[in-house]
Amino acid sequence: MTTPFDLRTIQRGARLRRSPYFDATLEAGCWGYTVYNHMLLPIGYDDLEREYWKLLNGVTVWDVAVERQVEITGPDAFTFTNMLTPRDLTKCAVGQGKYVLITAPDGGIVNDPVLLRLGENHFWLAVADSDVLLWAKGIASQSGHDVEIREPDVSPMQVQGPKSKSVLQKLFGDAVLQLEYYHFLETELDGIPVIITRTGWSGEIGFEIYLRDGSRGGELWNRVMDAGAEYDIAPTGPSDIRRIEAGILNYGIDMTLEHNPYEVGLDRMVRLEQDADFIGKAALAEIRRRGTARKLVGVEIAGAKLDLNMTRWPVHHDGDAIGFVTSAVYSPRLEKNIGYAMVPAAQAGLGTRLTVVTPLGEAAATVVEKPFVDPRKAIPKQ
Amino acid sequence: MTTPFDLRTIQRGARLRRSPYFDATLEAGCWGYTVYNHMLLPIGYDDLEREYWKLLNGVTVWDVAVERQVEITGPDAFTFTNMLTPRDLTKCAVGQGKYVLITAPDGGIVNDPVLLRLGENHFWLAVADSDVLLWAKGIASQSGHDVEIREPDVSPMQVQGPKSKSVLQKLFGDAVLQLEYYHFLETELDGIPVIITRTGWSGEIGFEIYLRDGSRGGELWNRVMDAGAEYDIAPTGPSDIRRIEAGILNYGIDMTLEHNPYEVGLDRMVRLEQDADFIGKAALAEIRRRGTARKLVGVEIAGAKLDLNMTRWPVHHDGDAIGFVTSAVYSPRLEKNIGYAMVPAAQAGLGTRLTVVTPLGEAAATVVEKPFVDPRKAIPKQ
Repeated sequence: MTTPFDLRTIQRGARLRRSPYFDATLEAGCWGYTVYNHMLLPIGYDDLEREYWKLLNGVTVWDVAVERQVEITGPDAFTFTNMLTPRDLTKCAVGQGKYVLITAPDGGIVNDPVLLRLGENHFWLAVADSDVLLWAKGIASQSGHDVEIREPDVSPMQVQGPKSKSVLQKLFGDAVLQLEYYHFLETELDGIPVIITRTGWSGEIGFEIYLRDGSRGGELWNRVMDAGAEYDIAPTGPSDIRRIEAGILNYGIDMTLEHNPYEVGLDRMVRLEQDADFIGKAALAEIRRRGTARKLVGVEIAGAKLDLNMTRWPVHHDGDAIGFVTSAVYSPRLEKNIGYAMVPAAQAGLGTRLTVVTPLGEAAATVVEKPFVDPRKAIPKQ
Repeated sequence: MTTPFDLRTIQRGARLRRSPYFDATLEAGCWGYTVYNHMLLPIGYDDLEREYWKLLNGVTVWDVAVERQVEITGPDAFTFTNMLTPRDLTKCAVGQGKYVLITAPDGGIVNDPVLLRLGENHFWLAVADSDVLLWAKGIASQSGHDVEIREPDVSPMQVQGPKSKSVLQKLFGDAVLQLEYYHFLETELDGIPVIITRTGWSGEIGFEIYLRDGSRGGELWNRVMDAGAEYDIAPTGPSDIRRIEAGILNYGIDMTLEHNPYEVGLDRMVRLEQDADFIGKAALAEIRRRGTARKLVGVEIAGAKLDLNMTRWPVHHDGDAIGFVTSAVYSPRLEKNIGYAMVPAAQAGLGTRLTVVTPLGEAAATVVEKPFVDPRKAIPKQ
């Protein structure tokens, strides 16, 4: 697409919020925006396969200001936050982050944020696309905990790819090289206040820069692009090809409020043995005991190259409609179509033969292990 | 725009949900979709001014399946639902609806749904763009009420305009002519289960048809279009021109969680005198006692014809930045630019002279009364 993006095809009025990097993304040639947490999220600037190779071989920048923060402070902040998630937050030090699930009383997944612990009683949840601010405020209105819950002025960008370390080192010094996976540090760049985390949504080495002053988004964007110029840094959207290879789930489609952690293979995010009586604990204990009726499995789909699905694709087995593909796309380096499907437990076994109804017609599919690459997540921890 | 809409410019993956009418809207030539409650909402099919005249003079159909229902049932459903809203639901009979606000403990507005009372302990909230499902479930997880809260398979469409009565009569018989404003009836159309309400977002005579079987959206759409053919029925987006003329507010911009009902002129939606101790009652009583520091006012903006704003426009007074225009557009029949601005109480008086920074440059503006037409809402009650 070569014409400037026409915002009138996605905005009606001023309801949707814009990122502090918005003007920069438009100038950089973003050709489409989706909506996430009531904000515009850049989809891409180039062909999605070319963006994938830029991520794998170099360094890319994504505007993810849509990852709004839900900040929890106050005397009961630790107790309250640990009540929201099945992870055991006694294992999360100040200065450390965790990928967490937020669960409902029935075990359904409300969100899957990255949690940062900024102080003993100071947490940020960088949320996926659902109103965790309302969820948390609603609970706090009744639970009696002494907490304050608000959305601070914080806007992350992701800098991902093997050359991201060089770019971050140049901008912030050697300290960033010492950061362990899922740890963070507070710093600034010529007075622009930021938090740097060793996190990302790519399966590659990567960082997120949490901007703490929305008025300085353009400045930060330009500084990052300038520092990365010698590494051919490129603005991109989040890479669905790479995140599917890595087995990363997208909230709102691969998992929703209708799914529990055991169905989507996030068992390790649920710590039933902890003392805290988190929301959903009883239901999840019962689900673990009796097992789940359906499972999100990895699938390889035969046939011609598939573009990223825009709807759930029906899955058939022996002629019966049994489930849906939630995410699928062609992996250029694996040279096959890969994805996830939600299917009954009886059809979740490795090697099960399925049929998927794609826009190109019916295609044979097989249940396979996921992640599709780097099963021990060694790459992002390098 | 004459080329088919390219969904890839708004969708990345299958996360965003589609309306049961989606295929019909695409076939009807919709040129853009925004996102609302994690779903695609058609913006328009024609020039927005031409769509406005179609609404004023004829009958129009809008896909508002994005108005998801939050259904509350169970023995404590009445008590629980009345706790969510400052309106007095003892005044809402079964078979009746109410425009309600949902408020937070500090009086901030969580949402502004249309509430339908389907039974003594059976409510639907047709919600604006925020996750009321999570808000209500979070509260119920702690409050001890015996309620069930879920999102049923219900997808409204609006049929609005002076000829809407004729179309609905043809489809559903004379009973719809007896419906009072904000009342509803349950019926069906060749087995398609629906609820018909005398409600809408237009300030015109209008109905909403709540489809209760998502698999039959295309059928219902075609039946409505066929019945309306003799009245030149047209698919349109919601008319921001007409709703601004009517003083109707758009959740997410004209009012948000940061605003209370008194600031946005919805005092009549707060019933402090009732027995129920609804969420936000104490804070709202205090706000009413001491008054608000800012107000959403009507403004007329001089100068050239303005397209609907896509960002908040800064408002200046005596050279100081004092607030923002939240919604503004040119009214073809009033032949002037009209809108709303959030300004300090000191500048909220009728006749106050302001300056608005629009994309066309600075423009003089004046605080005026709103609604801009039909101040007693006589038209939609006809």
